[in-house]
Amino acid sequence: MASTVNAQLPAVPLTIEGACILHLMYKFRWTEWGTQSSADRQSALGEAADFLQEAVGGSSQSNQAALYSVIGQKADLMLIYFADSMEDLNRFEIRFAQTALYRFLDPAGSYISIVELGLYESSAKTYADLIEKQIEPHSPEWNEEIKAVLERQKNAMTTRLFPSIPQTKYLCFYPMDRRRGESKNWYTEEMGERQRMMHEHGLIGRRYAAHVKQIISGSIGFDDWEWAVDLFADDALVFKKLIYEMRFDEVSAVFAQFGTFHLGVRLQLDALGQWADGSRE
Amino acid sequence: MASTVNAQLPAVPLTIEGACILHLMYKFRWTEWGTQSSADRQSALGEAADFLQEAVGGSSQSNQAALYSVIGQKADLMLIYFADSMEDLNRFEIRFAQTALYRFLDPAGSYISIVELGLYESSAKTYADLIEKQIEPHSPEWNEEIKAVLERQKNAMTTRLFPSIPQTKYLCFYPMDRRRGESKNWYTEEMGERQRMMHEHGLIGRRYAAHVKQIISGSIGFDDWEWAVDLFADDALVFKKLIYEMRFDEVSAVFAQFGTFHLGVRLQLDALGQWADGSRE
Amino acid sequence: MASTVNAQLPAVPLTIEGACILHLMYKFRWTEWGTQSSADRQSALGEAADFLQEAVGGSSQSNQAALYSVIGQKADLMLIYFADSMEDLNRFEIRFAQTALYRFLDPAGSYISIVELGLYESSAKTYADLIEKQIEPHSPEWNEEIKAVLERQKNAMTTRLFPSIPQTKYLCFYPMDRRRGESKNWYTEEMGERQRMMHEHGLIGRRYAAHVKQIISGSIGFDDWEWAVDLFADDALVFKKLIYEMRFDEVSAVFAQFGTFHLGVRLQLDALGQWADGSRE
Amino acid sequence: MASTVNAQLPAVPLTIEGACILHLMYKFRWTEWGTQSSADRQSALGEAADFLQEAVGGSSQSNQAALYSVIGQKADLMLIYFADSMEDLNRFEIRFAQTALYRFLDPAGSYISIVELGLYESSAKTYADLIEKQIEPHSPEWNEEIKAVLERQKNAMTTRLFPSIPQTKYLCFYPMDRRRGESKNWYTEEMGERQRMMHEHGLIGRRYAAHVKQIISGSIGFDDWEWAVDLFADDALVFKKLIYEMRFDEVSAVFAQFGTFHLGVRLQLDALGQWADGSRE
Amino acid sequence: MASTVNAQLPAVPLTIEGACILHLMYKFRWTEWGTQSSADRQSALGEAADFLQEAVGGSSQSNQAALYSVIGQKADLMLIYFADSMEDLNRFEIRFAQTALYRFLDPAGSYISIVELGLYESSAKTYADLIEKQIEPHSPEWNEEIKAVLERQKNAMTTRLFPSIPQTKYLCFYPMDRRRGESKNWYTEEMGERQRMMHEHGLIGRRYAAHVKQIISGSIGFDDWEWAVDLFADDALVFKKLIYEMRFDEVSAVFAQFGTFHLGVRLQLDALGQWADGSRE
Repeated sequence: MASTVNAQLPAVPLTIEGACILHLMYKFRWTEWGTQSSADRQSALGEAADFLQEAVGGSSQSNQAALYSVIGQKADLMLIYFADSMEDLNRFEIRFAQTALYRFLDPAGSYISIVELGLYESSAKTYADLIEKQIEPHSPEWNEEIKAVLERQKNAMTTRLFPSIPQTKYLCFYPMDRRRGESKNWYTEEMGERQRMMHEHGLIGRRYAAHVKQIISGSIGFDDWEWAVDLFADDALVFKKLIYEMRFDEVSAVFAQFGTFHLGVRLQLDALGQWADGSRE
Repeated sequence: MASTVNAQLPAVPLTIEGACILHLMYKFRWTEWGTQSSADRQSALGEAADFLQEAVGGSSQSNQAALYSVIGQKADLMLIYFADSMEDLNRFEIRFAQTALYRFLDPAGSYISIVELGLYESSAKTYADLIEKQIEPHSPEWNEEIKAVLERQKNAMTTRLFPSIPQTKYLCFYPMDRRRGESKNWYTEEMGERQRMMHEHGLIGRRYAAHVKQIISGSIGFDDWEWAVDLFADDALVFKKLIYEMRFDEVSAVFAQFGTFHLGVRLQLDALGQWADGSRE
Repeated sequence: MASTVNAQLPAVPLTIEGACILHLMYKFRWTEWGTQSSADRQSALGEAADFLQEAVGGSSQSNQAALYSVIGQKADLMLIYFADSMEDLNRFEIRFAQTALYRFLDPAGSYISIVELGLYESSAKTYADLIEKQIEPHSPEWNEEIKAVLERQKNAMTTRLFPSIPQTKYLCFYPMDRRRGESKNWYTEEMGERQRMMHEHGLIGRRYAAHVKQIISGSIGFDDWEWAVDLFADDALVFKKLIYEMRFDEVSAVFAQFGTFHLGVRLQLDALGQWADGSRE
Repeated sequence: MASTVNAQLPAVPLTIEGACILHLMYKFRWTEWGTQSSADRQSALGEAADFLQEAVGGSSQSNQAALYSVIGQKADLMLIYFADSMEDLNRFEIRFAQTALYRFLDPAGSYISIVELGLYESSAKTYADLIEKQIEPHSPEWNEEIKAVLERQKNAMTTRLFPSIPQTKYLCFYPMDRRRGESKNWYTEEMGERQRMMHEHGLIGRRYAAHVKQIISGSIGFDDWEWAVDLFADDALVFKKLIYEMRFDEVSAVFAQFGTFHLGVRLQLDALGQWADGSRE
Repeated sequence: MASTVNAQLPAVPLTIEGACILHLMYKFRWTEWGTQSSADRQSALGEAADFLQEAVGGSSQSNQAALYSVIGQKADLMLIYFADSMEDLNRFEIRFAQTALYRFLDPAGSYISIVELGLYESSAKTYADLIEKQIEPHSPEWNEEIKAVLERQKNAMTTRLFPSIPQTKYLCFYPMDRRRGESKNWYTEEMGERQRMMHEHGLIGRRYAAHVKQIISGSIGFDDWEWAVDLFADDALVFKKLIYEMRFDEVSAVFAQFGTFHLGVRLQLDALGQWADGSRE
């Protein structure tokens, strides 16, 4: 009979969402920049700094931008932007394209996502409670109850849903999927199994919490992977330690598939000129 | 004996088709555009708006175009066009290539498809009826009966086959395949199993119907994936909710393979100039 | 003992070959073309038409060219050329590269193949006969007999080996492989099984014969897929119907792997100018 | 006990190596070439011919170059160069980059390899003999014996290790791997099994020996595939016949994975000018 | 009971890290370089040599650079740089981008990693000891003990963690992963099994130690593969011999997946001019 009840449980965990995020990667035309007059460079830098300052000076708590110097040749510059809506993300990138600095940038990749918290434990409990009360999944009553749970959770987790971009020296960004292989398929695993694996996965993250802040965002329906991960730390080595340790836990070992990794060094707005002419200390 | 009858049933479900669709993605040369005189820009914008208006002003109900500002760097502009024939799609893109605006566009992907309704339930019923009547599959009599069924269905579903492009703020577009893996293969599943899975899949879509309109089109023989999906909604988050929930149903969890996702914000023709100079609110 | 005989049977089916085929895809520089003087355009068009006419006016029955306007952004123009030898194909493309029109074309893909008929039924019968006569595979006597069979077949099928390019409105072109997966592998299937599957596959094609002409060509050792398929029809929808139906037959469902699809609209030589300036009706 | 002895046998077959090979593919800028003065073209052609002649006129038997006109759009020109060392290959390509002709060439792929003969039969016999003599694998004595075997074989096969480039009309070039799948893995097959499969594979090659010359080279540690295959024939069709037949033998059917195929027509140095202006017969 | 203890053992082996490494690949604009005046070329070469000399003349033992001429068309030049931090790597590449020589270089790939030693044997022993002492994994006491082990090992292995770049003629560079397949998954193998396989793998490397120096670096969280391998030898053939032999050992045969291989010839700073004009002997 337990299995009958289980069978009725929806397989999809509840999620709550916060800030929309756009990652923008660019290559910088070093040589062309170097041939500009000093005045033109100052002017372009000033305009870009003003734009980025203004972009983050809006009324919303969620409007934030941060700049990173990307190591290696995948990109030179990474700009991340948090906003209240997808339309705002688009408005931001188009306005950035109007700046004089943009003339020296070539697009080198982007990623659209939204801050997401997956509520595996809350979902399991809520679904079980509702089933216990003999409320039929997706009935109006069910939907009301779910809606109430989500609102409570959203309120309780506002600061995690609309996080400040951590002021660490390094950023590690990568997108990822849960595997849907022919024999190993995350989406056909029982909810209880997924909940258990996510719990164990979370324990590792918690052990690193003092050294790495992470922002997980969802991108199903928005971009080509299911999730994006941003890790923030002052010591880049900790990214490797954390991800390597996680690679041995079940959910990563068996079900994680990773996209391209970008490693960036935080770049303050007023250091952009020194960055561009190679004089940044 | 039932199994003998089943064995005779064609495995391919009946489908009916409507409007031909062309998705056209372009990158926009922001910097080059910015260096044009105001008069040249106005002229190019006017010509483009006239062209697009005219393109959708033909006698056919199916001639429609819509423009989207694409978020992220995969493309800047997406133009979708519905027409009566594949040749019309081609004529449209070539004429668009003659406009002055086109000089600022670089091709960034396209997709060819045709609105399709898969008639799993009707197919199963029709095939069973004909077999019951001892009509041999693909015999002239069989073909006549099938043709009649298809015509009835086409007439009954004209508005779904030749849909108006919904006037929502957001569009989510992606192509997809049904998996043909070595052990999990959609095309070797029994028709009854496929019908059951498609039915369950459809139930999820129906729960979202108030918030998301979808247009499914087929592209086997036309482009590199088997189907294309266009989702229209005023709240982009609903794309993620819908697709995530579907990912746990059997047909998606086990058999769906997805191409690249494009997320666009609807752009009215008269807002194209403001879009291009970053002043659109 | 039957199995002993079977074990001796060569696994490779006999094939006969005809015309060499080169598919050439190009992007067209619309904007650059538009800036040319009318005289320069006329001159380039005239030269291209003369070249293509002459190219197909040789003494050989197999020298033929046809031009297609490709829908979508994979290419703008597709040129297919049939010749007596691979060297002729190369000579053709190099001469085409000398024309003034070529300056407005950017290569966008190509495919090399040779018209091929696979003789599964004839192979099975011939091999069985020779084994029956106790002729050892690959012995001189065996080779003589095989050679004789191939010559008879080539003579009987000359018009299929050196086909005229059908004068239909649409062309659908794609390359394909037979799967060599770890558990599903076409090349380790018994010859009898392959023969049966190919036979069933052929039955579908035959039902569509009135509406679709197909030219199958082999490209093992010439290009990156094993076969190329060209489908010719006046109604593009029929491509989807045919390929979708075939996708459910065993040889396609389990063993077919497909490359990129190109969908083209036939372009008569004298319509090239109207095509290029968007005035073709 | 036999199995104990077998377990001690090294799994890796002995190989001997000869000439280093560099395949260089280039696209040719037809239009730009066509705009050069006749004198400039003659000068560039003369310099290129001199360079290539000189490159092959060194004291070493292994220094050879050959030029091919590549069919289709993957490349226009393929240059293959045989040398005594990898450093020589690099010196050659850099010197070629200094020629005036190089200005009209765009790199379109390359491949580094070394002529290799795999000694499966000799390895099995040698390993068994040494084990019989109770010589421990990789002991100094073992190493001495192996070294002696390799030297004998190298001396006996000098002409195969440092082959002349055959003067055939056509070249077919492709790289390949042995599969390391999850269930089918060449590298975990028993040596005796591999020896048997390679032997059967070789029998097919031998039947085609009168019509196709082949040069197998190894590229593990040098380039992205494990081996490269160059087939030389006067009739291009024979490439297809040979490779198709091989595809059904076990080692190819189950374990071969193929890269891109290039099909070229031999181009004599003194025909380069006629090639470039499309007048070569 | 042993299995209970085993179950508690962390699955992740201890690692220690040393110098940060950046591989930078570039294509060289041969033709454009050739058109520069001799003075401009000398000036650019002098500046580049000064920069590279200075870059390696810092106070840290780990700051080193080496230059390689890459064989084939994947790149022309490879620059490897060892530094104390990831930020230093970024500073280095940006400063290099300021040089006049950089104008003739186009990025052609890069790789970020950190010298890594995996302590499988030490990990197994340490974990077992701590479990024996009933110290709970990840407790403060456990962490202290682990930290002490890592520090002892780091001190003992400083010269391997901060190695000098070997002065060999050839470099072979490639990134690699351990497979996470559906049935063969390195990360779900028991630690003891992984330890055994890594030990056997190491034995092969040791037999080649006189001829090949190797530097293994980790790149999880930094770049797109898990590890990078740099092999240094005076005879390039030894790369093939070593990697081919390793391919048959279990950890490589079953679990290794390889990225692109780059083969380079060491280029001394003062030979850069001769390299660029093709006169290097």
